[in-house]
Amino acid sequence: MQLGVIGLGRMGRIVVDRVLDAGHEVVAFDLSAEAVAAAADAGAEPADSVADLVDRLGDDKRIWLMVPAGDAVDATLDDLDPHLDGDDVVVDGGNSHFEESVRRAEACSAAYLDCGTSGGPAGAELGFSLMVGGPQWAYDELSPVFDAVATGPAGHGHMGDSGSGHYVKMVHNGVEYALMQAYGEGFELLAEGRYDLDLESVAQTWNNGAVIRSWLLELCEEAFREEGSDLGDVDDHVAGGSTGTWTVQEALEQEVPVPLIYQSLAERFGSRADDRFSRRLANRLRYGFGRHEVARKDD
Amino acid sequence: MQLGVIGLGRMGRIVVDRVLDAGHEVVAFDLSAEAVAAAADAGAEPADSVADLVDRLGDDKRIWLMVPAGDAVDATLDDLDPHLDGDDVVVDGGNSHFEESVRRAEACSAAYLDCGTSGGPAGAELGFSLMVGGPQWAYDELSPVFDAVATGPAGHGHMGDSGSGHYVKMVHNGVEYALMQAYGEGFELLAEGRYDLDLESVAQTWNNGAVIRSWLLELCEEAFREEGSDLGDVDDHVAGGSTGTWTVQEALEQEVPVPLIYQSLAERFGSRADDRFSRRLANRLRYGFGRHEVARKDD
Amino acid sequence: MQLGVIGLGRMGRIVVDRVLDAGHEVVAFDLSAEAVAAAADAGAEPADSVADLVDRLGDDKRIWLMVPAGDAVDATLDDLDPHLDGDDVVVDGGNSHFEESVRRAEACSAAYLDCGTSGGPAGAELGFSLMVGGPQWAYDELSPVFDAVATGPAGHGHMGDSGSGHYVKMVHNGVEYALMQAYGEGFELLAEGRYDLDLESVAQTWNNGAVIRSWLLELCEEAFREEGSDLGDVDDHVAGGSTGTWTVQEALEQEVPVPLIYQSLAERFGSRADDRFSRRLANRLRYGFGRHEVARKDD
Amino acid sequence: MQLGVIGLGRMGRIVVDRVLDAGHEVVAFDLSAEAVAAAADAGAEPADSVADLVDRLGDDKRIWLMVPAGDAVDATLDDLDPHLDGDDVVVDGGNSHFEESVRRAEACSAAYLDCGTSGGPAGAELGFSLMVGGPQWAYDELSPVFDAVATGPAGHGHMGDSGSGHYVKMVHNGVEYALMQAYGEGFELLAEGRYDLDLESVAQTWNNGAVIRSWLLELCEEAFREEGSDLGDVDDHVAGGSTGTWTVQEALEQEVPVPLIYQSLAERFGSRADDRFSRRLANRLRYGFGRHEVARKDD
Repeated sequence: MQLGVIGLGRMGRIVVDRVLDAGHEVVAFDLSAEAVAAAADAGAEPADSVADLVDRLGDDKRIWLMVPAGDAVDATLDDLDPHLDGDDVVVDGGNSHFEESVRRAEACSAAYLDCGTSGGPAGAELGFSLMVGGPQWAYDELSPVFDAVATGPAGHGHMGDSGSGHYVKMVHNGVEYALMQAYGEGFELLAEGRYDLDLESVAQTWNNGAVIRSWLLELCEEAFREEGSDLGDVDDHVAGGSTGTWTVQEALEQEVPVPLIYQSLAERFGSRADDRFSRRLANRLRYGFGRHEVARKDD
Repeated sequence: MQLGVIGLGRMGRIVVDRVLDAGHEVVAFDLSAEAVAAAADAGAEPADSVADLVDRLGDDKRIWLMVPAGDAVDATLDDLDPHLDGDDVVVDGGNSHFEESVRRAEACSAAYLDCGTSGGPAGAELGFSLMVGGPQWAYDELSPVFDAVATGPAGHGHMGDSGSGHYVKMVHNGVEYALMQAYGEGFELLAEGRYDLDLESVAQTWNNGAVIRSWLLELCEEAFREEGSDLGDVDDHVAGGSTGTWTVQEALEQEVPVPLIYQSLAERFGSRADDRFSRRLANRLRYGFGRHEVARKDD
Repeated sequence: MQLGVIGLGRMGRIVVDRVLDAGHEVVAFDLSAEAVAAAADAGAEPADSVADLVDRLGDDKRIWLMVPAGDAVDATLDDLDPHLDGDDVVVDGGNSHFEESVRRAEACSAAYLDCGTSGGPAGAELGFSLMVGGPQWAYDELSPVFDAVATGPAGHGHMGDSGSGHYVKMVHNGVEYALMQAYGEGFELLAEGRYDLDLESVAQTWNNGAVIRSWLLELCEEAFREEGSDLGDVDDHVAGGSTGTWTVQEALEQEVPVPLIYQSLAERFGSRADDRFSRRLANRLRYGFGRHEVARKDD
Repeated sequence: MQLGVIGLGRMGRIVVDRVLDAGHEVVAFDLSAEAVAAAADAGAEPADSVADLVDRLGDDKRIWLMVPAGDAVDATLDDLDPHLDGDDVVVDGGNSHFEESVRRAEACSAAYLDCGTSGGPAGAELGFSLMVGGPQWAYDELSPVFDAVATGPAGHGHMGDSGSGHYVKMVHNGVEYALMQAYGEGFELLAEGRYDLDLESVAQTWNNGAVIRSWLLELCEEAFREEGSDLGDVDDHVAGGSTGTWTVQEALEQEVPVPLIYQSLAERFGSRADDRFSRRLANRLRYGFGRHEVARKDD
């Protein structure tokens, strides 16, 4: 089948390559002419505008958006919508908030699929995990493409109505934060604890048969191999956090306790603060009631 | 080589079978004559006492203990020690506290290896992950056995001095609690959230290519397949907790923050309490300052 | 001075009484004629509609709203606004979200003060703590009324621009949740711990000279006196939570970690759930990897 | 009555002064001759050794120890014990672990009271809160002294058997950590939040009538008055933690969840770490799966 792909960054390009590898045709567009040219070299048919891409797709268009979550999705849909009708299908493969996806699905002239995509650049070889929400017929229609982009038929699923794909992906990311922090706590205790351990060896041993083996633990093993057991000059600054924030916000609305996910997010916030006011106040209060010496910044 | 195995419960029996399958000889003893007979049927040489087992091993004995952590280990060592010398090697494959293992290693006439074993009954087929502490020469000497019991050479590692094997296993279990709780929070939010989802399908999709794929997530997938998306009549009572408690205790001593591991353990405690006094007091205090109605037990 | 009071529930009525006691005049209105009559008995001038109340106030109206947060505030303001101009002052003394107060302040024809009110019904005698946001002149103008409603001049403060009063009150409530939970944890440990203690006596001893003495601890003492050390039939169900939820939401936006406030809120959510899915999954997973028996609901 | 006081540091000296002020006699000893001389100037009878102090007390000795928790208590008891019999009473007013107090009570020839003391140096004027464990008759016998040292009769209580005084004090301190952290979170959100607030004014307004008013909040008010709303050069390093650690350890043994107390302690640990290994690993893992740039220390 034929797929239009808009957005040829690292992730969009992987989509293009995997769909081409599976024997499908791709029409590719990006605001960067360079990215379009590179996709063309890889076998895609280049388009020089959204309108041009649409023209090249003919009837029953299937279009995959892989543009940054937020305004870029709306801007692209604004360009696309005049050319779409109810037989067309648009997939948003980015990290959009599920409520935005519900809103867009309602507004879009085509059938709209929200597709949570996990696996990162490593998915170039293995394929991604794809969580898809929206009309069943549209999901079925796109299945050959999903088979190609995912690890295979088991790597994609139709979660439910519009928004459910990005909803499940949001929760996936909340869990991801907590898993990272859980491994981090364990390795921190090992690093600060009673034995002088080779953490790559620990991670390798765990990855072979232990209950906690996982892909993230394989990435820990890789990190220790490449950076050393002390993680070398890796800083304790953790960027990111939007999908985790959304997960906690949704959990507040649903009144579901998610203390581990919350704490993992709070650790990120804390890692980005120079100083913690709460701790400074605690320090000062210990003087207030106990005349314990106050630690000062220039000490 | 020849290995004595004391303790033929589920885990000990897996050790026997895997060592036999690898072409080694096994002398087996258990307090249950039935368990000994079953091991004999599987190809082990039966012993009818610790002394008999030792006799059958000859010089340079290699003995694997797979008895319940605690007094049973000390009782077995009391029986064994008169028969041991410094050329012998004893492996404790159970979930002993690392400080007990240090103490036992000092007291034991043989070289003493503390071996954390992870993987559970599923290790019968795959092999276990083995984290080993104690003298290097003893670890090297036992390597053929570790190769057999573990998933292979990558599934066992020499962590360091005495106690380090059980230390690493203790931390493994702390992380395990947190991973389980992290997945639990995610699935709880999905179960209580905005969409009516097939959680087996979610878990399957995640297990194929998503960042959070893991063996525990495969067990979630299995749980939803066998119990349904609502987990049927599975109760919210979580047993166990000793190794997690040890992990938090050690983290307190090392002054390492482990909030996720702590909270996972606290969830277990909470799951076993009929009532939480702290919540009852909060309920009553809301009346105290705001005259909010007090929820009473017979309401 | 003369004050119009709209909303004569428990809190509004305390405002009326304290303002009358301080020698000011009050014009009172409520949707309940009974409440108006009761206020009239106490010395207020009754009004039979918002329009009537406004008429009775003459120029430079000062009006205190003590109606439920949410739509009732907007509905009252809709009725009031045609009668107001820039020399008038409206105070919202309820638990409105600060962003609503900013919006209302911009829309209102009068000067608008958002006033966080803490102290609960106990404030009838002691006076309240009032955190006020909005124009400085309007705050100064209302100071005699604030002196009367608060514990005195030290019991009210001008926090800053519009919304700041309700902002500070929101954070106050987040802290309140955490303090309640902190005392709750301490008393739970005492109740479940090694000694058979008289918790009223513990609370009384602490309230006299200990570092943790506070009004909430006095309410704990009262609770143990009235309910017993075991809290009798008080249930472990904690209602409420909206202001705490707002606090956590704002902390997420500001990227400020508030783990204690979060956890206190999560305890409330947990107290209202029959079952915790996360714990049910953990229970089942322990079977998955360890063949530990699964606790079932009908066991 | 006549009281021997051993240990004349800040807290011991307050005991001496308050007991003298109440019209009792004091015999005072400290390893520092200077401290003894100062107590003598204040009206106490000086002793130049433990033996000398005991001689001066005659029969039915009542002795208050205010020496650092730990070895100093045992060393003092070693010196004292040969001079004591069952009609004598020894009070340990320090922060001893309750299990040590149980052990000492069993070993001591005199009746032994463990007395948790809260209120800090501020207790010099107000008196302390005293939580006392041990034999009832000994508590009754010492009541005049407790009346003097505490805020009055309501400021001391007989908690129960040996160890219960220090047990209740231990839990008091755990709660204290959590209260400090709770206020800290609230003020951190206000400091980092949307409004430019005078935190002294906020604290003052809260302390007058708000639900969360407390002595610790008065100390916050004082801190902001003396250091400014930004806490000036106060560092975010929080020392201490032993009694909080004991509280969490006991809660682990009792299987009582204390997430707020735990987290408050973890914040202290975190405030003393240069770097958090868990966050460094999370930073690196984000590269592992998403090729997000790794923050490096020299960046």
